[in-house]
Amino acid sequence: MILIKDVSILPMTAPEDFIAKGYIIIDGARIVEISEGQAPDGNRFRQVINAGGMVAMPGLINTHTHAAMTLLRGYADDLPLMEWLQQKIWPMEEKLTAEDCYWGTMLAAAEMIKSGTTCFADMYFHMDQVAAAVEKSGLRACLCQGMIDGPNGEAAFTRSQQLFSDWHGQAQGRINVMLGPHAPHTCSPQYLKRVINLSEQLGIGIHIHIAETQGEYEDIFKQYGKSPVSHLQEVGLFARPVLAAHCVFLNDDDIGILAQHSVGVAHNPESNMKLASGIARVPEMLEAGITVGLGTDGASSNNNLDMIQELRSCSFLHKVNRKDPQLIPAYQALEMATVNGAHALRWEGIGTLKPGMLADIILVDFEKPHLYPRYQTEGLLAYSALASDVDTVLVNGKVLMQGRQLTTIDEKEVFRQVEQIVNRLISSI
Amino acid sequence: MILIKDVSILPMTAPEDFIAKGYIIIDGARIVEISEGQAPDGNRFRQVINAGGMVAMPGLINTHTHAAMTLLRGYADDLPLMEWLQQKIWPMEEKLTAEDCYWGTMLAAAEMIKSGTTCFADMYFHMDQVAAAVEKSGLRACLCQGMIDGPNGEAAFTRSQQLFSDWHGQAQGRINVMLGPHAPHTCSPQYLKRVINLSEQLGIGIHIHIAETQGEYEDIFKQYGKSPVSHLQEVGLFARPVLAAHCVFLNDDDIGILAQHSVGVAHNPESNMKLASGIARVPEMLEAGITVGLGTDGASSNNNLDMIQELRSCSFLHKVNRKDPQLIPAYQALEMATVNGAHALRWEGIGTLKPGMLADIILVDFEKPHLYPRYQTEGLLAYSALASDVDTVLVNGKVLMQGRQLTTIDEKEVFRQVEQIVNRLISSI
Repeated sequence: MILIKDVSILPMTAPEDFIAKGYIIIDGARIVEISEGQAPDGNRFRQVINAGGMVAMPGLINTHTHAAMTLLRGYADDLPLMEWLQQKIWPMEEKLTAEDCYWGTMLAAAEMIKSGTTCFADMYFHMDQVAAAVEKSGLRACLCQGMIDGPNGEAAFTRSQQLFSDWHGQAQGRINVMLGPHAPHTCSPQYLKRVINLSEQLGIGIHIHIAETQGEYEDIFKQYGKSPVSHLQEVGLFARPVLAAHCVFLNDDDIGILAQHSVGVAHNPESNMKLASGIARVPEMLEAGITVGLGTDGASSNNNLDMIQELRSCSFLHKVNRKDPQLIPAYQALEMATVNGAHALRWEGIGTLKPGMLADIILVDFEKPHLYPRYQTEGLLAYSALASDVDTVLVNGKVLMQGRQLTTIDEKEVFRQVEQIVNRLISSI
Repeated sequence: MILIKDVSILPMTAPEDFIAKGYIIIDGARIVEISEGQAPDGNRFRQVINAGGMVAMPGLINTHTHAAMTLLRGYADDLPLMEWLQQKIWPMEEKLTAEDCYWGTMLAAAEMIKSGTTCFADMYFHMDQVAAAVEKSGLRACLCQGMIDGPNGEAAFTRSQQLFSDWHGQAQGRINVMLGPHAPHTCSPQYLKRVINLSEQLGIGIHIHIAETQGEYEDIFKQYGKSPVSHLQEVGLFARPVLAAHCVFLNDDDIGILAQHSVGVAHNPESNMKLASGIARVPEMLEAGITVGLGTDGASSNNNLDMIQELRSCSFLHKVNRKDPQLIPAYQALEMATVNGAHALRWEGIGTLKPGMLADIILVDFEKPHLYPRYQTEGLLAYSALASDVDTVLVNGKVLMQGRQLTTIDEKEVFRQVEQIVNRLISSI
């Protein structure tokens, strides 16, 4: 058992549940007690974490990324989306080996742990290597093989099934597998129907990009006479549990459809800003009752995996976009990065801190100039904190970082491997 | 003399001047040598800084803030501007003593140094205390007493002249004094004309808020039949060197006027986002040749003083707002936070690194997961870096932080003082 003591606790169950000073007891992978006041005697615990001056909250949940794209971070900045993809990103991705994806994901894992992310939803390729990196790093993840209709369409099915057999529920239950059809404009209705069938057969959800760009919206409309969301509804996708990334271009009917089918949305404000895709109608989605989580998207279009920065950008962007400073207040932004993310991934047991929940916990060190004074904890976390304020990270009851030192990842080795990979990639251009 | 060796150098003189590995020699307050390659023997230096794995760049310049407002950080989030000001901020500000402003500015100084800011332009009250905090902290600053027409209008003149006599050019030349008429809607034309005369008489510049909100724009138009910028031109303000904060609402003619009179603009994207004021026409201003620097505004509307986050938000916000991912690329965002800021403040000798310039230098530690791999230094600094990556800060040739340890400020003492002040403020509400 682990005891975290002398800690402030923002459990994200409700704002009024904030505990100014209390303790958390963890047994195995789960929280067994949360209480205010003096902690019990430390002798009976395997580990005691003195968290004076720190705030405990649920680990952050990144609902949409492509972890191994850390390898392409900063490779091609400030370019239009299609030029960025076609001339820069795709040619480089073709050169990535399975081992590259392992090390790219390990780099992402180091960055995610150091910025307080405990769970991420990933869509990429060589996913067995991504799973291996998740197992090694101690993180929690929803993984899917990207599936694109066409010459590699069949192979993507084989790989997806293999990923499911090998990894679903593995790593002490830290890995869930999903199916990852890329997007409506890269997957035909027939292909999507096969995905839907397989998802039903395996009893798993679907992670897909929807309506990221105006161009995609218009193309789908031209081809099917419908918006992407409406088209996907007709194909039958939303009969399954769906995690929809981006959803930047939605009409009012689309919002109704997503709400009606309990589609989880992964909002990626910074990637949408950097690629100049547009601003998703998040306030309207939230008002319609849609579960909107937050994602960073890949590190090549963000350009980091920092969820604390992401939730701040989310709040600020929608405030200015709608000229309403009351939109997405601090606590709601924090909900999007925690409990909403858990719901969007349909992962029971994470996203809040209470007895019975999995012990995915971060401790944020508040002894920093930018975190004084202390009128309100939630505002400081949402608007003033930095990723580097995260001192300690636990996932599934295991300490992955303490005092900013990673316990499962040898950072220097990761840096060395990544430099070698990138040298090879660049010399082959 | 100080030697910084084994360092990458982004001098911000031109992108191609980047030095992958080199050294910097500082004598007194100034840089005397910058070169690539092996550093000279260290014996002849008073101090040698081994900066392997780090990037040196000019210290960041915050062109608009209200430093002591750190005391109100997070006191009133997610409120409409006028409610925020009238019901929350102003009543609290009335309670602030001179000593409060000293400690609030010291808290700001600690935060600024720790996030790589070396120079800031401040407008507030009890400015003698702000100056004392600048002197003690070792930072560089352009200070002005906020001047509002009305019952305290005369006192503001007296205080401004006193500030000038006591502090202009003081603290080893680290303090410049300006005049700070608050805004066109709080200062009558007559009052502004007196400010202009005094500025001429003292030979100093003017720092003013212009067109921060739509409401202000409309009020001025109603009152004078002109936009704020056009009104201020008629009053004669732009005959003096002017630093104009915000400038969110400008028509095309306004942009022409600011360009024609070489008005420096302090753009505050995050404050404008959080308060939902609007998005300034920065790309158009830059195209018109206006010098646009960056500011954080006060910590109560931002909610931090983090210029690295600010320059990233600036780039991303304008990209998505104009649907052009090529707008404000990484290097230009960095220019806004350094060399443009220096020009906006009309401070010769800062903003770039080259022999003869003042030694305001920051060293950014790149041995972080989010700063790998290394395709391009400027993109990593602008889009991936965190304030906490700043390892070392020098101002005027003096080390204010090394290895993240402050040398001029006792952080714990500042935290203790600020907590006491805030307890008093809250108990008096």
